[in-house]
Amino acid sequence: MSDLVHDLPDDTIRDALPLKWGSVAPGVLPAFVAEMDYALAAPVADAVAAAVRRGTTGYAPLGDLGVGEAYAGWAHRHWDHAVEPDACVVTGDVIAGIRLVLETLCAPGPVVVPLPCYPPFRDIVAVSGREAVYVTTDPDAPDQESAGLDLAAVEEAFAAGARTLLLCNPHNPLGRVPRRSELEALRDLADRYGARVVSDEIHGPLVLPGLPADLGFTPYAGIDPRAVTVTSASKTFNTAGLHCAVVVAPDHADRALLRGVPLVQNHAYSPLGMVAARVAWGEGDAWRAALVERLGHQRDLLADLLTTHLPRARMRRMEATYLPWLDLRAYGHDDPAAVAVGHGVAPAPGQAYQPGLAGHVRLNVATSPARLTTMVERLAAAVA
Amino acid sequence: MSDLVHDLPDDTIRDALPLKWGSVAPGVLPAFVAEMDYALAAPVADAVAAAVRRGTTGYAPLGDLGVGEAYAGWAHRHWDHAVEPDACVVTGDVIAGIRLVLETLCAPGPVVVPLPCYPPFRDIVAVSGREAVYVTTDPDAPDQESAGLDLAAVEEAFAAGARTLLLCNPHNPLGRVPRRSELEALRDLADRYGARVVSDEIHGPLVLPGLPADLGFTPYAGIDPRAVTVTSASKTFNTAGLHCAVVVAPDHADRALLRGVPLVQNHAYSPLGMVAARVAWGEGDAWRAALVERLGHQRDLLADLLTTHLPRARMRRMEATYLPWLDLRAYGHDDPAAVAVGHGVAPAPGQAYQPGLAGHVRLNVATSPARLTTMVERLAAAVA
Repeated sequence: MSDLVHDLPDDTIRDALPLKWGSVAPGVLPAFVAEMDYALAAPVADAVAAAVRRGTTGYAPLGDLGVGEAYAGWAHRHWDHAVEPDACVVTGDVIAGIRLVLETLCAPGPVVVPLPCYPPFRDIVAVSGREAVYVTTDPDAPDQESAGLDLAAVEEAFAAGARTLLLCNPHNPLGRVPRRSELEALRDLADRYGARVVSDEIHGPLVLPGLPADLGFTPYAGIDPRAVTVTSASKTFNTAGLHCAVVVAPDHADRALLRGVPLVQNHAYSPLGMVAARVAWGEGDAWRAALVERLGHQRDLLADLLTTHLPRARMRRMEATYLPWLDLRAYGHDDPAAVAVGHGVAPAPGQAYQPGLAGHVRLNVATSPARLTTMVERLAAAVA
Repeated sequence: MSDLVHDLPDDTIRDALPLKWGSVAPGVLPAFVAEMDYALAAPVADAVAAAVRRGTTGYAPLGDLGVGEAYAGWAHRHWDHAVEPDACVVTGDVIAGIRLVLETLCAPGPVVVPLPCYPPFRDIVAVSGREAVYVTTDPDAPDQESAGLDLAAVEEAFAAGARTLLLCNPHNPLGRVPRRSELEALRDLADRYGARVVSDEIHGPLVLPGLPADLGFTPYAGIDPRAVTVTSASKTFNTAGLHCAVVVAPDHADRALLRGVPLVQNHAYSPLGMVAARVAWGEGDAWRAALVERLGHQRDLLADLLTTHLPRARMRRMEATYLPWLDLRAYGHDDPAAVAVGHGVAPAPGQAYQPGLAGHVRLNVATSPARLTTMVERLAAAVA
């Protein structure tokens, strides 16, 4: 296995990841926050530490410090996806980017939010003063093939007046890579109704090894020129706290609107985050390759552990992200996460992603094999 | 002079301060952005660099990492002002804090904004969907004694329905320390009309040496328990890009409202900013003492330079901040900043702080004596 990915040791991990490890009692293994228990990629850590030493802790620049060009290079190398560097508008994080897009680019009307979803999707729609229309993936869908967007429900929402859809591509928490054909069908619907798709692609680089050759990540903007993409290096490189993401707006008028807001409406990004993003996207290919290899091993280990300890758990194939979505309904607990925390492991409760959905949890496998093993053993002790 | 404050050298300053130095053509001296051309305080730089090395680049914690306690200690030591650590709610920066307060705590109705003001004050009122009512300091006020809040205009605004006032204490760009008696009169008005004062005290530690003994900084919350204070270590310690400020809410119900918003409404602070704030407020007394001594020398140098090169410039006594407010109307240029940039110095245009006010600029003296000398020489060459 590559030696680029290093586990954070027990004695410093609480200081390193104060939300993930500081929000649980000592002894509890946190598996709810989407951060990885790995040390920073060396080029990123070196560049950010050097920037601090240089004093780059003041206001962010007017330009993008090379972030757009670095993302364009990354998108080209990894997905053969063409991005104009100037299309990238820097913002603080994906959620801030979605808020900015809702406030500046999206036509009035409700916003379609597929469920389950990352909980801030629902919050940011509310904070932006929009109505959300939910379309839901059937929890009983037997496999990822059948766990896609409910396009009939999407069309119904568009027909009723919705003009925006928040896509999560790849999908968190379903761990699923949307199929190209499905995205083309969505694009056709968006075309027909004049709706705009806002695609969160923060998990794009985290498609796991071992998938069929025809099942790769499709940057949504590659098939729908009206779409706006929001993404960040922060999920792949563990730098959420540095605050840098990009809104990618292929349309020149859209870019002008995004850049024309008062600075106070989009000023939560940091120069250290911009340095980190430039270096991550510019020099982080080897780290990313080592990371997905490591995550693939963790996924395989999880599968073995589930077979042994939680044989009645259901999990569709983990195609992307490090956040498996576990259906534990067979064990009969409405809120297995609440039960689990008493047994020393804290997964994220499924209801946070889909209100009213009992018996599910989102786990986080981006940790050491030993910690993952203990997590599943404890989860089994709690629910089985 | 203390050796704690080090000038950033010409060959690295563009990388260190990419907004201030990267937004002007090579050769132009920037004097518009409120950042200092000094290296970071050593304890802050050490702590932030160590945090990066440890990997503290992920999500900010649920707690405050000791920021509230550090601010309480600072307020007690410097101003004998009692702050409960738990009253401090972390936010991204002062403007984000003002937005949060407007959105959660302030009664409906217009917001009183004294002019001149830091331009984002006006923008954030608009972005928050509020109407602004301006009260204006007479540009011809002969001295700081007579350049205070127009309390009659404030009362008129309250009587007409405004229920919020944005105070800038000490005042940017007037470089003025509001008098205690004036703040007490404001408090009485706020009491009478049930209005709330939101006090930006980011410049509180930057009261300059040499003032009369009875003219010190008055934390506004010390005389008005309904007030909310918004402040940050970032102005005194040059860490605006690390994104950490506090909203200080003495009232428990206010705190609960501030802490009760969805995370996405207040999530733009960073763990590195929290580390920097804790160390700055906790261990930064010596740096702050050295800094205000240095800034006092710069202020005195500016006075000499004006006498020599710009004798018709008017400047009231610089009591606080490193941002002198210069009245250059005697030289006959509507927009002296625009003229100056062609001569190699870029002050901030007065109209940005008070729309329609001709002939003023805001300078920034937080640089080296040599650069300040060149700045004033160039400004004189431009306008005189």
